[in-house]
Amino acid sequence: MTHSTLIDQLSAFMNERIPFQKYLGIKVTKFDGQESEVRFQWKDELVGNAPMQILHGGATATALDTAGGVVIMASVIERMEKNLSAEEIVERMARCGTIDLRVDYVRPGRGNEFITTATIIRSGSRVAVARMEMHNEDGMLIAFGTGTYIVG
Amino acid sequence: MTHSTLIDQLSAFMNERIPFQKYLGIKVTKFDGQESEVRFQWKDELVGNAPMQILHGGATATALDTAGGVVIMASVIERMEKNLSAEEIVERMARCGTIDLRVDYVRPGRGNEFITTATIIRSGSRVAVARMEMHNEDGMLIAFGTGTYIVG
Amino acid sequence: MTHSTLIDQLSAFMNERIPFQKYLGIKVTKFDGQESEVRFQWKDELVGNAPMQILHGGATATALDTAGGVVIMASVIERMEKNLSAEEIVERMARCGTIDLRVDYVRPGRGNEFITTATIIRSGSRVAVARMEMHNEDGMLIAFGTGTYIVG
Amino acid sequence: MTHSTLIDQLSAFMNERIPFQKYLGIKVTKFDGQESEVRFQWKDELVGNAPMQILHGGATATALDTAGGVVIMASVIERMEKNLSAEEIVERMARCGTIDLRVDYVRPGRGNEFITTATIIRSGSRVAVARMEMHNEDGMLIAFGTGTYIVG
Repeated sequence: MTHSTLIDQLSAFMNERIPFQKYLGIKVTKFDGQESEVRFQWKDELVGNAPMQILHGGATATALDTAGGVVIMASVIERMEKNLSAEEIVERMARCGTIDLRVDYVRPGRGNEFITTATIIRSGSRVAVARMEMHNEDGMLIAFGTGTYIVG
Repeated sequence: MTHSTLIDQLSAFMNERIPFQKYLGIKVTKFDGQESEVRFQWKDELVGNAPMQILHGGATATALDTAGGVVIMASVIERMEKNLSAEEIVERMARCGTIDLRVDYVRPGRGNEFITTATIIRSGSRVAVARMEMHNEDGMLIAFGTGTYIVG
Repeated sequence: MTHSTLIDQLSAFMNERIPFQKYLGIKVTKFDGQESEVRFQWKDELVGNAPMQILHGGATATALDTAGGVVIMASVIERMEKNLSAEEIVERMARCGTIDLRVDYVRPGRGNEFITTATIIRSGSRVAVARMEMHNEDGMLIAFGTGTYIVG
Repeated sequence: MTHSTLIDQLSAFMNERIPFQKYLGIKVTKFDGQESEVRFQWKDELVGNAPMQILHGGATATALDTAGGVVIMASVIERMEKNLSAEEIVERMARCGTIDLRVDYVRPGRGNEFITTATIIRSGSRVAVARMEMHNEDGMLIAFGTGTYIVG
């Protein structure tokens, strides 16, 4: 199995199999071992301030954590030995997890689509760190943050 | 209108009118100007790791941010002049917002019910800070965190 | 008094009058209301891990907080009414303060000189946020972080 | 060598051999694998705001990071195999390091003595997390924070 096939599979896996991501409508739109991008559309269920029509900060935090997790997992896959079985890969993915997350809310979450990108900053054998940013479709910065992840 | 009536109204307002909170099933169960508690039940839509049956970190972050926001708003209400109209109160609430949030994930999010408490640590006229913890129904600490909020 | 004169004065003030900054050898090398830069030289008193000859994380945190504070104060000065007296300006500066700081340590702090830059991300009338990065003289990223500041 | 002897040695090692800690006057006053305490006295070199006579936030960050690092290292020592040589222990300690640090500044740093305590929250084989608080001699909470550490 090639690495790019693996990454396609990871994308499908995440888009379909992580229930909370699907519940919010967050889709992984691209990634490799250095950067990732996830997107979601405005929907009324994601609102935190109905009178002001502003996204809930928890939806933003979820998108940032998702984008960070995606780039971390892709980075782990890139560094894996080539001949791992699918079971071993899934088992390795399941050992990845968020240790801590900081989100800085810059502007009210307004827009039709929200694009979150993550860049890997530190990629170790035990711990990895990613930096994330969320913009709306007009390129307005809504939030940014940092996530620290344990890697298997 | 007494302060305790205001707080009851805020609780009803938040339980019913913040769509994302309702979408996740987070209910405000108690609070005053010093402490708050919110709860939600496990449901499959909140899962982040289906094979391991672990809550998504974004659901946890949402619960922490909600509990922090509740205690901050209650604290603002407690310090308001007594004769504000309902419109003025709502307008003041709408000016509160999360500036930044840090979440530390301590243990995998497993359980039937998740109880998040927040304590106010700093309560200024411009900025307030709350510290939050989430346990499951067995008293296991799942996550803790800190939120910094702007107050109107 | 022009704004650029004010900024020169602030720079001199900070380089000379903040004892801890001087104790560590941190110098403000440039800034305006959008960006700032501070620098310090390696000295043995700043070491945290003597066998490995690595800078102490507290020295790094201090440099990041300093760079963030500088750009925040410059931003406040830029927005001030023009005819404030020196006393009013100093009084306004004294009301600025760090609310919270996050530092991410990326690589061991090794080098001869450490250059920390800060960019303003959010600039409100009550709260401002800056993002900081510290590199060594070879351009290696040592640490980055975010600071939230109260402004007077 | 018993564990308590090891801990005494670590204390002496840190009090004497970490130059930045000594430069600031931070002393490790007690610790085991669950909790630690470090203290420092007010001295004019640690001031960040001379007109207001307030401690620099970088000194506070350093004390928090130190207390967190101490409890993490003690926790690692407690879990070590009993028959390691001193060289192996030192080598293991040198592999510990701060990944990220969050500091929340609650009140201006005023006092004669500052007491920082750390409690271990997560103690894994790869990553450990500690929560810290700094009070002055009157029991006023000055700051609190969280540190994430890589462990060897």
